[in-house]
Amino acid sequence: MAKLLHHKLDPSSRLIRLMAAEYSVTLTFEEVSPWKRKPEFMDISPAGSLPVLIDEGLPPVVGWLAAIAVIEEQFAPAAVEGLIPSNPAHRYECWRILEWVQGKLNDEVTRYVLEEKVGRRERGGESPDVSALRAAKTNLVEHVHYFNWLVASRSWLAGDSLSLADLALASHLSVLDYLGDIDWSEIGETRDWYARIKSRPSFRPLLADRLVSMPPSKTYADLDF
Amino acid sequence: MAKLLHHKLDPSSRLIRLMAAEYSVTLTFEEVSPWKRKPEFMDISPAGSLPVLIDEGLPPVVGWLAAIAVIEEQFAPAAVEGLIPSNPAHRYECWRILEWVQGKLNDEVTRYVLEEKVGRRERGGESPDVSALRAAKTNLVEHVHYFNWLVASRSWLAGDSLSLADLALASHLSVLDYLGDIDWSEIGETRDWYARIKSRPSFRPLLADRLVSMPPSKTYADLDF
Repeated sequence: MAKLLHHKLDPSSRLIRLMAAEYSVTLTFEEVSPWKRKPEFMDISPAGSLPVLIDEGLPPVVGWLAAIAVIEEQFAPAAVEGLIPSNPAHRYECWRILEWVQGKLNDEVTRYVLEEKVGRRERGGESPDVSALRAAKTNLVEHVHYFNWLVASRSWLAGDSLSLADLALASHLSVLDYLGDIDWSEIGETRDWYARIKSRPSFRPLLADRLVSMPPSKTYADLDF
Repeated sequence: MAKLLHHKLDPSSRLIRLMAAEYSVTLTFEEVSPWKRKPEFMDISPAGSLPVLIDEGLPPVVGWLAAIAVIEEQFAPAAVEGLIPSNPAHRYECWRILEWVQGKLNDEVTRYVLEEKVGRRERGGESPDVSALRAAKTNLVEHVHYFNWLVASRSWLAGDSLSLADLALASHLSVLDYLGDIDWSEIGETRDWYARIKSRPSFRPLLADRLVSMPPSKTYADLDF
């Protein structure tokens, strides 16, 4: 059985956990803190990237792009519509949004919040930089504004079926929600879309995640948030 | 014939130009400045991402991930080893390095240099922030250190054939070289690897690129740098 090195609040790890669960791929898990930069982890993932998929017959598969490729190529069910849309226009839209979420949303919002609230703590106790958190919050409003516009006219982000784009955005929002950085009353249409994803069986293990002495926000595990 | 909206010094645009040239796909080109954020461009690419591929029968294809998918699916030659390795271990290695270059290297080096030297200028004349440029230069040393180690034991970044990983790193280094931000005497093994890529026919159009009233460094177009 393949093993996933992951961090509970790393959005790329969550994306791959969701992808595997949607495809009914059973994985074992091992937790890693990318912020601690332990030598045995940095040897496998020199950029400190997560997740890492360890499977027989392959060198460790490092990062979300490589992990998507492995799961899609080796585990995707052939008979059903997968998480990469078969319609070409929807497929390229899926990649566009995936790049947006894993690139721009991560750079402007999620990684700042994670660094300030989790990274500093895991490295040993510095307190968060409030101005970085405030900037991330302002940036999040801009992103949500766009996603509200998108989901107002579509069932799912890339078209009419659930895709990797949805799993990626839901991963990031779930991390921000855990850390109390989302005011759902201000989120608009994206809130209804997130409620649909959150109630999927694949999401259940994520909602049970808890960081030691850092409980989630009240809304985090509530399906009726 | 498909058209590529691009910027001459945007590394993701260069990656797709190189990929298309390696596959002998002929494109037409239209230049866009992502920094000017013109409404007609932002309507097509709301995140301001480049490149954008415009082809008949498809909505605009936005971003490097989506453009890779289109070119690989619609234009890749079936008979030869393509730019995504057929060996699984090499293929996942290619995705790992692509994520590194387009994510980490871009975030820590290239986008700072581009923002300070090109973005500020194209928006209208602010002078660059010297401390950001200095930080980018320090970060580049760390990255090159790793790539030196990698190319010391492999013909190409992801294994024994040219792949998207090589084209991506070469795109970033070429942009930094244009702007005079690489001291080749300090680059080590990566210099020899870059010399091999630079002499490929696919690279020639990039070496002829010139920004208006911003000439390239002396080494930029020199194959014997």
